[in-house]
Amino acid sequence: MTDTRYDVIGLGNAIVDVIARADEAFLAKHDLAKGSMHLIGPAQADLLYSQMGPGTESSGGSAANTIAGIASLGGSAAFAGKVADDGLGEVFTHDIRALGVGFDTAPLDSGAATGRCLVLVTPDGERTMNTFLGAAQELGPADIDEEMVAASRMLYLEGYLWDPENAKQAFVKAAEIAKTAGREVVLTLSDAFCVERYRDEFLELIRSGTIDMVFANEHEVRSLYQTGDLATAMDALGGEARSAVITRGAEGATIFNTGSRVDVPCEPVARVVDLTGAGDLYAAGFLFAKARGMTPEECGRLAAICASEVISHVGARPQVNLADLARENGFPI
Amino acid sequence: MTDTRYDVIGLGNAIVDVIARADEAFLAKHDLAKGSMHLIGPAQADLLYSQMGPGTESSGGSAANTIAGIASLGGSAAFAGKVADDGLGEVFTHDIRALGVGFDTAPLDSGAATGRCLVLVTPDGERTMNTFLGAAQELGPADIDEEMVAASRMLYLEGYLWDPENAKQAFVKAAEIAKTAGREVVLTLSDAFCVERYRDEFLELIRSGTIDMVFANEHEVRSLYQTGDLATAMDALGGEARSAVITRGAEGATIFNTGSRVDVPCEPVARVVDLTGAGDLYAAGFLFAKARGMTPEECGRLAAICASEVISHVGARPQVNLADLARENGFPI
Repeated sequence: MTDTRYDVIGLGNAIVDVIARADEAFLAKHDLAKGSMHLIGPAQADLLYSQMGPGTESSGGSAANTIAGIASLGGSAAFAGKVADDGLGEVFTHDIRALGVGFDTAPLDSGAATGRCLVLVTPDGERTMNTFLGAAQELGPADIDEEMVAASRMLYLEGYLWDPENAKQAFVKAAEIAKTAGREVVLTLSDAFCVERYRDEFLELIRSGTIDMVFANEHEVRSLYQTGDLATAMDALGGEARSAVITRGAEGATIFNTGSRVDVPCEPVARVVDLTGAGDLYAAGFLFAKARGMTPEECGRLAAICASEVISHVGARPQVNLADLARENGFPI
Repeated sequence: MTDTRYDVIGLGNAIVDVIARADEAFLAKHDLAKGSMHLIGPAQADLLYSQMGPGTESSGGSAANTIAGIASLGGSAAFAGKVADDGLGEVFTHDIRALGVGFDTAPLDSGAATGRCLVLVTPDGERTMNTFLGAAQELGPADIDEEMVAASRMLYLEGYLWDPENAKQAFVKAAEIAKTAGREVVLTLSDAFCVERYRDEFLELIRSGTIDMVFANEHEVRSLYQTGDLATAMDALGGEARSAVITRGAEGATIFNTGSRVDVPCEPVARVVDLTGAGDLYAAGFLFAKARGMTPEECGRLAAICASEVISHVGARPQVNLADLARENGFPI
């Protein structure tokens, strides 16, 4: 455990978000379930884009957002994910490297374009995501740098990686390297529909101890245990996972840590503008604080502060220096 | 004057903004004068991009922002400007058409890439712009649709068009068409350094009556009359232009209209996040209100409301429906 060059290495779909406002009628017309992530093909992506409102483009991807947040807090972080050798790929690469994140995955030089997510934000701030994976799904085991994974205190994996077969293999390889090196492996369940698709595999990863820590929101944890009762689902995850963090939006979060339970409130915001990235930045604050040896309560509080920043503007990446924000809130980092 | 299909047609550099936070030291290191616009070449653009922080991409361009604002208010608007047949060109085209703006300028099919502006936003909300014009400078007289210009109540031109020679010719051609059709021609001075470069030409356009109405901020009007004294410069412009609107940020704006003067306060905002687009959206509110026959005071008030929306978030295009915002503020539109 001597070489810990990175606090966290993240593995995820490398995606650029195209964010636009939409009303409920637009979601209904396009048969989109609000708040979830839909995988779409290139033709669907073109059609939806042509019908949606004016957008803003910004780097996204769930694990990539978390890694960006950790770097903005002053943590040392790396990311592996696949972009294409095109304009959006350049944007993604620039944005993550500009934060000091180690990002060296070779871009795909032929074939699919860089993945993009058409994010529709309704007036309530909820986001509905439509993802064209493109080059992201070409991430494979060969892209996993064994030495880099072994040199990271924590490996952070997104459940979305189970959608592309290659990426799933990369996930499994990275988890094996981390376990062998004695590192912690952290999984975010990503999305309730994603859990629907891979419930048994995710449960097996948790039960086998491959995953040490799980991030989930209320929908995902209910989907994991196929119950409408949140308390039942939370207790089940808290009992099975070594550590688990369940976020419940304005209700705050519950942290299970080797049997003990802590509830942490959310951080108030003047106006919720866009929930994109809320869970990702929660995880960023939590993992950074954990790497700095803070208590679960402190981890939850810094997590909530990071999430509150990202939901107060459009886009899933922080727009302020999170280390400054943490210091303003009394964290001596 | 019977066929007035459009309230306003705008002519400008078609640009996509890449917006990032920067501190004062970064501006100093790169020798950039805060608050102004710098023209840069492709090599400079690559260098600056590689050194600036993570960004968000959103459609921009001064006159294009104004036209987008007019459309968001419910006005009928058109735009002429040149993008390339590339990814950013697609973004620009999508975003302006999604608002219902008539935009049919043929994209450049070879040569330069779509123009982009690297916008650096300092902690005070001020923006410093570094523009690589790219395809935008290929806008020429052949791109001016005579019938479309003649069918617009007002022609809105940005001073920046005088930088590329072709675009200047397009400017002159459009102004001639509009005058012949008995339309109003409106000029925004764009930038104090832009005024430095073309002072004599701009003054001649105003004095000859080619331009009916001028938008300027305090720096631009001082530059136009080469005086440090704002009152002197404002009186000079008010005396020479048929109409003039001088914006002074938090100090409000002064409207001269055939000799009479009105001062209108700015609209308070909770926090100035990014001043990019403030002047452009001020012009949008003003011209829309003018097209609806409102008084100068009402024009100034709606203008201030539109500007206050755009400075409260990152990016130069409105993120809410401005017609709704106008109605919430008591405008029966």
